[in-house]
Amino acid sequence: MIPEYGDVVKVHTKEDVYEGILLPRPEIFDENYTVIKLDNGYNIGIENKKITKIELVKKYEKKKEEKRKIEYKKGLPNISILHTGGTIASKVDYRSGGVVAAFSPEDIVSMFPELTEIANIDSELIANMWSDDLRFPHFKLIAKAIEKKVKQGADGVIIGMGTDNLAVASAALTFIVEQTPIPIILVGAQRSSDRGSSDAAMNLICATEFIAKTDFAGVVICMHEHSDDKTCVILPPTKTKKLHSSRRDAFKPVNDTIIARVDYNMRKIEFIKNDYVKKDKNIKLVIKPNMEEKIGLLKITINMFPEQFEFFKGYKGLVIEGTGLGHMPGHVPNELANIHKKIFPAIKMVIDSGCIVVMTTTCLFGRVQMQVYSKGRDLLKLGLIPGEDMLPETAFVKLAWLLGNHKKDEVKELIGKNLRGEISERTDEKAFLY
Amino acid sequence: MIPEYGDVVKVHTKEDVYEGILLPRPEIFDENYTVIKLDNGYNIGIENKKITKIELVKKYEKKKEEKRKIEYKKGLPNISILHTGGTIASKVDYRSGGVVAAFSPEDIVSMFPELTEIANIDSELIANMWSDDLRFPHFKLIAKAIEKKVKQGADGVIIGMGTDNLAVASAALTFIVEQTPIPIILVGAQRSSDRGSSDAAMNLICATEFIAKTDFAGVVICMHEHSDDKTCVILPPTKTKKLHSSRRDAFKPVNDTIIARVDYNMRKIEFIKNDYVKKDKNIKLVIKPNMEEKIGLLKITINMFPEQFEFFKGYKGLVIEGTGLGHMPGHVPNELANIHKKIFPAIKMVIDSGCIVVMTTTCLFGRVQMQVYSKGRDLLKLGLIPGEDMLPETAFVKLAWLLGNHKKDEVKELIGKNLRGEISERTDEKAFLY
Repeated sequence: MIPEYGDVVKVHTKEDVYEGILLPRPEIFDENYTVIKLDNGYNIGIENKKITKIELVKKYEKKKEEKRKIEYKKGLPNISILHTGGTIASKVDYRSGGVVAAFSPEDIVSMFPELTEIANIDSELIANMWSDDLRFPHFKLIAKAIEKKVKQGADGVIIGMGTDNLAVASAALTFIVEQTPIPIILVGAQRSSDRGSSDAAMNLICATEFIAKTDFAGVVICMHEHSDDKTCVILPPTKTKKLHSSRRDAFKPVNDTIIARVDYNMRKIEFIKNDYVKKDKNIKLVIKPNMEEKIGLLKITINMFPEQFEFFKGYKGLVIEGTGLGHMPGHVPNELANIHKKIFPAIKMVIDSGCIVVMTTTCLFGRVQMQVYSKGRDLLKLGLIPGEDMLPETAFVKLAWLLGNHKKDEVKELIGKNLRGEISERTDEKAFLY
Repeated sequence: MIPEYGDVVKVHTKEDVYEGILLPRPEIFDENYTVIKLDNGYNIGIENKKITKIELVKKYEKKKEEKRKIEYKKGLPNISILHTGGTIASKVDYRSGGVVAAFSPEDIVSMFPELTEIANIDSELIANMWSDDLRFPHFKLIAKAIEKKVKQGADGVIIGMGTDNLAVASAALTFIVEQTPIPIILVGAQRSSDRGSSDAAMNLICATEFIAKTDFAGVVICMHEHSDDKTCVILPPTKTKKLHSSRRDAFKPVNDTIIARVDYNMRKIEFIKNDYVKKDKNIKLVIKPNMEEKIGLLKITINMFPEQFEFFKGYKGLVIEGTGLGHMPGHVPNELANIHKKIFPAIKMVIDSGCIVVMTTTCLFGRVQMQVYSKGRDLLKLGLIPGEDMLPETAFVKLAWLLGNHKKDEVKELIGKNLRGEISERTDEKAFLY
């Protein structure tokens, strides 16, 4: 019997034996390779000429997934799950090797049956995309969907999204949703649902529990706290960054603390911050979805050229991810740095073209303080605005949002002021790593 | 008696009284402000019209700093301190408000007298600059100075540098110094020596102790481990990032561990890694200081434009700080992302122009894995090279150094290979934050 795609096989080479699910060859592998998905969820390509035997272990069986009929349960809250794509709520189709989306309320309930015990679930597909491909108009789309769900009487909205830009999106939505009667929780997964180590179910269930059992309203993120399956954390939407490429506990607060902790096994919720806005269906949803398109983000390094700054002439806003307390090249300490003569004039030209330039720090933790050294003071004189302790990504979406909703003078005033928890008090000594 | 610059004064306003050292007004403050340096080391500007009284507390007295004559002590190691500027080994001149450099061996010994008990200190000024203004040719200058000191028989070299790019410089010097008979330690300070909380002395003393008491050879960083004054850490030169803008323990290993810990009070050294190259004066110093100038670093965000990539056409190398496992925009999930159609072609144009493009991750922690999602595989097909678990800044100086010393094909081969500890083994499960 010749193994087919989807079958579990053992691929023998002279040196090794690999067991896994036989997959269609992805485009990047040339045809001389056989690809299998290993138990740990990753794919491996084995050169055909090295293969001595392919042994069939188990024929592919399409799982009969009974689509559960959803009963409306009185007394349970109504929660809408909006899907935008990403690893969460997707699974691999072993016939095609591709990831398929599972998005109807019935699909969601089939995948995560526990949800029906916590809430009445309704689900909608907004988009099916990598979060890297998000553009500002997508936030408008998401905001409109939130608006619809609030009108329909939802007690909470969960947004499933790819993790790469989930924290950036949560910051953007926090500015866009100026006022909300209900909680809006962004949830992602670092491992897809077909992997034993998937965090999709637990993140989704904890978010649902948080909506069902607390009176919290506002935009937040819900993800794993540690690499074990004990707790999820509710994270501040403008002060969180994905700080690990693959771990399930990749999302960490930066210059802030978590808002709450959800104990997955005990289904208990512990608030760390108690000064939140409370759920109140009488509060009106206020949405301001406009964002200025022409915004740049420039990470500083040594050995830069004036052209790298001049490029942003004509942009409406630019966030610089500078070094330390908010620094960048531009002094001429000696003849080896003669090229720096043109850097400050280049920035001046950008600012004179109408661009608002905001300084943040690549240290991520800590605050921009541009008065401490003459380097910073010279940049202030040029017209750069300190971004305080905002994450560069948060400053980026905030600047775009401000320019979409305010006059230029107001934007200059508001960018350094705290609007949505994105800037801490100067007196707050925030916990650092470790 | 009218208070003069340098005097300790009390500035009274209706609401408050501020005590500190009267400073010349920095250029950014307009003339309607009076500026004093507070006890905590920071400057404050008080609007003149709010000032009710300025009271003289203490006249400025120029400290008599006896320049200690340095005696050569037989049996102690010879250590050269090379200065390039920055907060370390500088102090504020309260008459001018400016920071002055203290760089002769006598000055150093006057500031940090304990050093003479550990080693015979010799010191040299290479440059006096912000580390932000470092350009690649400065590393050549530093390398030449190291060469000179090794020839003169130094047992170790300490390089004092501004902290903003100290970790970047340590990575660059690690590639440049291919082989060394002695230790080369980069040391900075987050607070200047005139502040009670300065870390300058302790970092310098711990680095000196580490040279004097161990057989370690190679480039490393020595900075505070915690915010207290108990221990310093010896950090891996290619896997360290300044992760806080102001804390003294800002320097943290990323995807790696510390090499050793120096107990400041007990003067004891504990090695965490034992597989280091040992000091051996018979080993030849090998220096390869060439670095390609035309290298870019591009941080990815959502909502980018094709022009931001096209810009790098003609550059010899580009490091992309992508998201997650090594991703960026470039798919067209729907009509809202139509602009993405031109992003992959723009990258192709850059690569076709002869530019080597390397992908790293803005998560900092964890590894780029571009085979996992089709997003990554599409980027691989375009010709992007995965930067494994290198810090974006390390990949940047490595790429510049490789292009300065190798043929293009070799560079493509070597950028993803571990040369100086900058890439971990895939099997290493590295400790994450917290």
